Amino acid sequence: MTSPTIPAPSMYSADDPTGFTALESEVRSYSRAWPTVFDRAVDATVYAEDGTPYLDFFAGAGSLNYGHNNRRLKQVLLDYLIDDRMVHSLDMLTTARREFLETFHEVILEPRGLDHKVMFPGPGGANAVEAALKLARKVTGRESVITFTNAFHGMTLGALSVTGNSMKRGGAGIPLVHATPMPYDDYFNGDVDDFVYLERLLEDGGSGLNEPAAVIVESVQGEGGINSARAEWLRGLADLCKRHGILLIVDDIQMGCGRTGGFFSFEEAGITPDIICLSKSISGYGLPLALTLVRPELDIFEPGEHNGTFRGFAPAFATASEALRTYWTDDTLERSTIAKGALIESHFNSVVSRYSQHELVAKGRGLARGLQLPDGELAGRVTAEAFQRGLLVETSGPDGEVVKLLPPLTITDDELRRGLAILDEAFAAVLS
Amino acid sequence: MTSPTIPAPSMYSADDPTGFTALESEVRSYSRAWPTVFDRAVDATVYAEDGTPYLDFFAGAGSLNYGHNNRRLKQVLLDYLIDDRMVHSLDMLTTARREFLETFHEVILEPRGLDHKVMFPGPGGANAVEAALKLARKVTGRESVITFTNAFHGMTLGALSVTGNSMKRGGAGIPLVHATPMPYDDYFNGDVDDFVYLERLLEDGGSGLNEPAAVIVESVQGEGGINSARAEWLRGLADLCKRHGILLIVDDIQMGCGRTGGFFSFEEAGITPDIICLSKSISGYGLPLALTLVRPELDIFEPGEHNGTFRGFAPAFATASEALRTYWTDDTLERSTIAKGALIESHFNSVVSRYSQHELVAKGRGLARGLQLPDGELAGRVTAEAFQRGLLVETSGPDGEVVKLLPPLTITDDELRRGLAILDEAFAAVLS
Amino acid sequence: MTSPTIPAPSMYSADDPTGFTALESEVRSYSRAWPTVFDRAVDATVYAEDGTPYLDFFAGAGSLNYGHNNRRLKQVLLDYLIDDRMVHSLDMLTTARREFLETFHEVILEPRGLDHKVMFPGPGGANAVEAALKLARKVTGRESVITFTNAFHGMTLGALSVTGNSMKRGGAGIPLVHATPMPYDDYFNGDVDDFVYLERLLEDGGSGLNEPAAVIVESVQGEGGINSARAEWLRGLADLCKRHGILLIVDDIQMGCGRTGGFFSFEEAGITPDIICLSKSISGYGLPLALTLVRPELDIFEPGEHNGTFRGFAPAFATASEALRTYWTDDTLERSTIAKGALIESHFNSVVSRYSQHELVAKGRGLARGLQLPDGELAGRVTAEAFQRGLLVETSGPDGEVVKLLPPLTITDDELRRGLAILDEAFAAVLS
Amino acid sequence: MTSPTIPAPSMYSADDPTGFTALESEVRSYSRAWPTVFDRAVDATVYAEDGTPYLDFFAGAGSLNYGHNNRRLKQVLLDYLIDDRMVHSLDMLTTARREFLETFHEVILEPRGLDHKVMFPGPGGANAVEAALKLARKVTGRESVITFTNAFHGMTLGALSVTGNSMKRGGAGIPLVHATPMPYDDYFNGDVDDFVYLERLLEDGGSGLNEPAAVIVESVQGEGGINSARAEWLRGLADLCKRHGILLIVDDIQMGCGRTGGFFSFEEAGITPDIICLSKSISGYGLPLALTLVRPELDIFEPGEHNGTFRGFAPAFATASEALRTYWTDDTLERSTIAKGALIESHFNSVVSRYSQHELVAKGRGLARGLQLPDGELAGRVTAEAFQRGLLVETSGPDGEVVKLLPPLTITDDELRRGLAILDEAFAAVLS
Repeated sequence: MTSPTIPAPSMYSADDPTGFTALESEVRSYSRAWPTVFDRAVDATVYAEDGTPYLDFFAGAGSLNYGHNNRRLKQVLLDYLIDDRMVHSLDMLTTARREFLETFHEVILEPRGLDHKVMFPGPGGANAVEAALKLARKVTGRESVITFTNAFHGMTLGALSVTGNSMKRGGAGIPLVHATPMPYDDYFNGDVDDFVYLERLLEDGGSGLNEPAAVIVESVQGEGGINSARAEWLRGLADLCKRHGILLIVDDIQMGCGRTGGFFSFEEAGITPDIICLSKSISGYGLPLALTLVRPELDIFEPGEHNGTFRGFAPAFATASEALRTYWTDDTLERSTIAKGALIESHFNSVVSRYSQHELVAKGRGLARGLQLPDGELAGRVTAEAFQRGLLVETSGPDGEVVKLLPPLTITDDELRRGLAILDEAFAAVLS
Repeated sequence: MTSPTIPAPSMYSADDPTGFTALESEVRSYSRAWPTVFDRAVDATVYAEDGTPYLDFFAGAGSLNYGHNNRRLKQVLLDYLIDDRMVHSLDMLTTARREFLETFHEVILEPRGLDHKVMFPGPGGANAVEAALKLARKVTGRESVITFTNAFHGMTLGALSVTGNSMKRGGAGIPLVHATPMPYDDYFNGDVDDFVYLERLLEDGGSGLNEPAAVIVESVQGEGGINSARAEWLRGLADLCKRHGILLIVDDIQMGCGRTGGFFSFEEAGITPDIICLSKSISGYGLPLALTLVRPELDIFEPGEHNGTFRGFAPAFATASEALRTYWTDDTLERSTIAKGALIESHFNSVVSRYSQHELVAKGRGLARGLQLPDGELAGRVTAEAFQRGLLVETSGPDGEVVKLLPPLTITDDELRRGLAILDEAFAAVLS
Repeated sequence: MTSPTIPAPSMYSADDPTGFTALESEVRSYSRAWPTVFDRAVDATVYAEDGTPYLDFFAGAGSLNYGHNNRRLKQVLLDYLIDDRMVHSLDMLTTARREFLETFHEVILEPRGLDHKVMFPGPGGANAVEAALKLARKVTGRESVITFTNAFHGMTLGALSVTGNSMKRGGAGIPLVHATPMPYDDYFNGDVDDFVYLERLLEDGGSGLNEPAAVIVESVQGEGGINSARAEWLRGLADLCKRHGILLIVDDIQMGCGRTGGFFSFEEAGITPDIICLSKSISGYGLPLALTLVRPELDIFEPGEHNGTFRGFAPAFATASEALRTYWTDDTLERSTIAKGALIESHFNSVVSRYSQHELVAKGRGLARGLQLPDGELAGRVTAEAFQRGLLVETSGPDGEVVKLLPPLTITDDELRRGLAILDEAFAAVLS
Repeated sequence: MTSPTIPAPSMYSADDPTGFTALESEVRSYSRAWPTVFDRAVDATVYAEDGTPYLDFFAGAGSLNYGHNNRRLKQVLLDYLIDDRMVHSLDMLTTARREFLETFHEVILEPRGLDHKVMFPGPGGANAVEAALKLARKVTGRESVITFTNAFHGMTLGALSVTGNSMKRGGAGIPLVHATPMPYDDYFNGDVDDFVYLERLLEDGGSGLNEPAAVIVESVQGEGGINSARAEWLRGLADLCKRHGILLIVDDIQMGCGRTGGFFSFEEAGITPDIICLSKSISGYGLPLALTLVRPELDIFEPGEHNGTFRGFAPAFATASEALRTYWTDDTLERSTIAKGALIESHFNSVVSRYSQHELVAKGRGLARGLQLPDGELAGRVTAEAFQRGLLVETSGPDGEVVKLLPPLTITDDELRRGLAILDEAFAAVLS
């Protein structure tokens, strides 16, 4: 292999020790928080170019629920490629596509009593959200969508319009309209009854609220700060949607595929969304794949009315099928996730007590966990300290004030404890 | 490997011989035109599950310029995966990312005198377009975009709003605004001077045209019907943009990476776009990857202002780097593409003469070629006949009236002639 | 005077006893509720063509605060016309315009410590609102506006977008965007603290609320059902706007010019809006005139940037000036309005007690008074009964459930008592 | 009458010799061009406060087709007011409303074979346009509207979005969407066939043009620079609309009521618009009144779906009815208008010849006439010179480059010649 060319010195700068970032847009972000060059990764460990190992409590922002280069999935992927099976196939029929559709039906949908049709809306989560919104509008003939405070659904224009973060919204360069934000669960610390505002606006013909096509919600808001909706709140929302003829879209891109325990994050609440968005960990191997699941009666797009080049990346079908067979034909992973989540929760509760003067808040469900600090500056210092000690962990929340834990679900208890110990040191360095 | 589960008989239906499509949304399209199940593929040949070979003049809608499972790239990909190098890395610094950035700089940008910064906007072409539009609006503080008749830029809301096809636009479910369509080159068969309308509207303070942030254009419109803009038209457009302070975005997603001969489709015209969108064949192996190239002075997004889970799919960096080294360090591929394109053109000219009563029109440049039939029904019959004879070729154009040829650039002359011979039979079956 | 032509019999229909409505659009409304032909009017009495007198508790929906054809203003108007003074003058300087500007400054603005510039935005209230919204957006560079549940601001596109009524919004035929409705005072019957939702959304960078240019509010919502905001709520709103850099627009079109007692409805609250909209009774004689009052530092429209044919109807300047001199140089009218309002309130309280089984609600302030019935059907029957008995009174509220009293401020106590007595009969006929 | 109060000296400034403009918003415009205070006006003459007479070639921007304080209409208006007939009546049935509806039907609609229903959309032209656009969208279920270069339809948000002038559009403060500008007649000086662009976009399913609800057009563009569409162009447009199921709205606010000869400006072309907007001169006396005329099958607004306080200003009904009876029951006025227009045309042709080095262009039809100068600065100097000599005449066009003549239709030949002689002096002062 030809060795890569070294760019001219002028491209380096004092604040760009790694050099090549001079070639990349300033929009890059993680490379600023973690200023090292990574090379290899196995399970819950990532290795820098110089061999330094980092324990990964970030897992590709929830895209690597089964760890990096999962052994079992790796073999399936290599076999697939070695055998020259189709890699790029748009939405042609392939053996890999069939295998995935049938496996997903048998392992996931049918046992949960779901009869949703599977749509491949494009390679990433934003595509799944865009397709969901387009379909909801087409089905209902309405334009408006209800979204929730601190929601995150993606960066393409449709997805961005239902996303809360003002900095990211500002990037649109046009007014983002057609969406109205409503308070997420516990937005007022229990002072205001659930849905009192939304329900009143919907019932009042003079409220000025455009009749919504859909509500889009995350069961647990990851980017929004690990805000976890109660099951009864989700049930209330589903009920309200049904009473008012509004479609319920659950964006399970980050919290699905077992992140909270069950395969879907809404299972615990016992609700059946009209449309479900999946991506991130669905391939099991970090490969770009996204699904929009649609109740059969809503499946009204014309052939090709929504299309795209990377709908249904075939190697991802292969790894996804194997991941479903490996982790979702019994409840081993689900129970393990809940147990590990409880371990973190218990640990975080002790941290909260330890630093009671800082009024920390432990948040989350399953293996989506957060510890809220007073502000984003402190939280950023905690993650920087963790990085120095070999732990990858990021922040989330509107001000980046929540230290967010999304370890691989397959992490060992030992690794989990080791990571929490590093975090303890980081908290101590910042909060003591 | 566990054998896939066979779905219950109730999922089959008379018009669904392959069975598993019952599980997939009705939005699927290619699987309707080509009702067989594909399994493997090498170079320009795709194999159905039963071993039937199909010559591929479609190449993943331009995503497989170097053929299916290209031998050289395959080895790089396998090595990458076998070595457990990072597969999913968001925008963290990785050795693969560095290799790609440096190779792209050395092999592509620098020799062409381009100093664009590279942005990784997400996994697919629509992400590249969304980022380009967002950035152009942020830079200029304007909202409106000029697009062209029969443009195709993608299915997410921002990209769809600058796309021409009315059926696809209808899928949005909301009015698509902020874009004004202008006539593409030769839209009036030479009866109207280039840009007379656009230029007049821009100069007239009373025209009612919102001042545009950007013009977005394809050098050759693939989905629009293989409409090829003349170099002088592109130069005129670039000049007009400069005179009026409008950013020029070239969407080179389908026509870049050598499809028309040079790496970029606009090289022949000698223009320098402000923003360039690349995807499809950039990975070289059909892996989801997209770039938005930005002139340095426009690189004003804040860190993380546009982000996403699958920005910079690392195995795609590996294959992309190797593809650049293999095919773009000399002009062998470029000359071959032009020669093969000339071969098709010459052949198409004879077809046009042969069926002069049908007023066929030969279109295109390089290895993006089209033969326009009187209507979409006839063109659809031609591609169906071709499929029966073992050739994959699709239609494009507003009514699907153009038989569109996008063979791998690496196709052999023999394969090319064989495919054209099949096409001849298909034309004869339909037009004679 | 030539006698009017009688239309051909075919234009009459069974449900159109008055005949000529066949020539008018179906959009007409009051002519359906009051199916008689009116001819003359003096003070608080309107006379039908056949001489039947009707006591007017409607007053041109608040446009006739000084009664019909007010004697004093009538003489000013006749003198103006007889002297051939300018009737139509766009925004040319005229003696009438000067007189009005100076009188308004001396009698209204200066004594209240207001230094607002006067803009003549067009002939009607919607023009005043449109100009206010345009200016607020231009000043702030933001697009979004906060409006309140059950707001009414007009039927042109900008004004309609900040209006609550869903039937009227539906008439737009396009999605009405750029406005977000917030709960008006007491929307949750005291169960939710004032502004808890708005304030939280404004403070939370992840809320998804577009940063608002302005809040537009009515001190008392007339069309919305005579909902009267408490002074402390208005103060809270003004304070919130100041803290967040949001412009406060008070639409005083229906409630200004003394309807609630003071000249401006917000005087009681002691707030100073950034922009104030006036129309309806400002001419004093039912002549089309509207004002947008603007704090000097916001007066940034370019000359002619907002214009229109009927800005500043000169005879209206003459009557308006006289009305200000007559009614607003001392507090006689203000005290009278409050006293008469108290009389209605006391009367309504007795009605509420009388029909306690219907859970009526007495609402309002000054001479803007409402009695809320269980539903619009009952309220409609009450006003129909009143009409039969010679009283003009209309309904308002989202379902038309409020019997709304807007008598001329100059109504005599005797007339007021007579009208209330008729209303009593109407209530008895419907509710007993 | 109480004498007006003199404002405090601080309100005067050096550049505000008239003083009272300090109280008015900077948005005022005519008062800058004509810095004198007007007081009275009769027929074609306006008198300043000091008695200086000005001949009026402006006529309230087309609102005073029958002159200022027309003797006959004045008497009707005085009688109406003296008799205490209703002045303000919303859309209640009144004797004045009936008289107008019946007179308009008999004198205008019926003789022209029009069966349009009359809607009273509000007091001004913008209201007529807003209602027309709302209705067209409601009828068709589409949002988009085709407008023309240099169109002017008003300043409210809906009307502004179909207006061409970029300065005025900028005042909106939000992106104006839903409208696409098309070239008005002769926009390319005959180099491009009529409608070639619009027709092609409509026929091409891939054009990207949103399917339009309506086309809105002025037969002669007044504000746009006295651009006069040929009858065949209007017929071509009407035919195109019919073929494509698009509603044709003619905005006859400035050019209707006889300005071009016939009552409607489109009569000459022999077309029947679906919707017609009238205002300005319809009252005959400069009183605010507007009509939206609607083909019966399009009359689908719900009762009250579009409403407003000043719909149907009753004294205006009285003067309007009398104006119709006086001027439109025979063709005297129409013939006179055409003859006077020919006189101006002939005169302008000689001016064009006289100053051939300036390439002046004579424009217009009937008594809507313009002389186009090389730029707005020169044209502004011409009108300033005219004002100095006692003639009121304004400019129009995107750069104010057209000296625009809209004299009262009732102007005497002598007055017309006197005004043209003043203009000659003004041209000589500027162009010689």
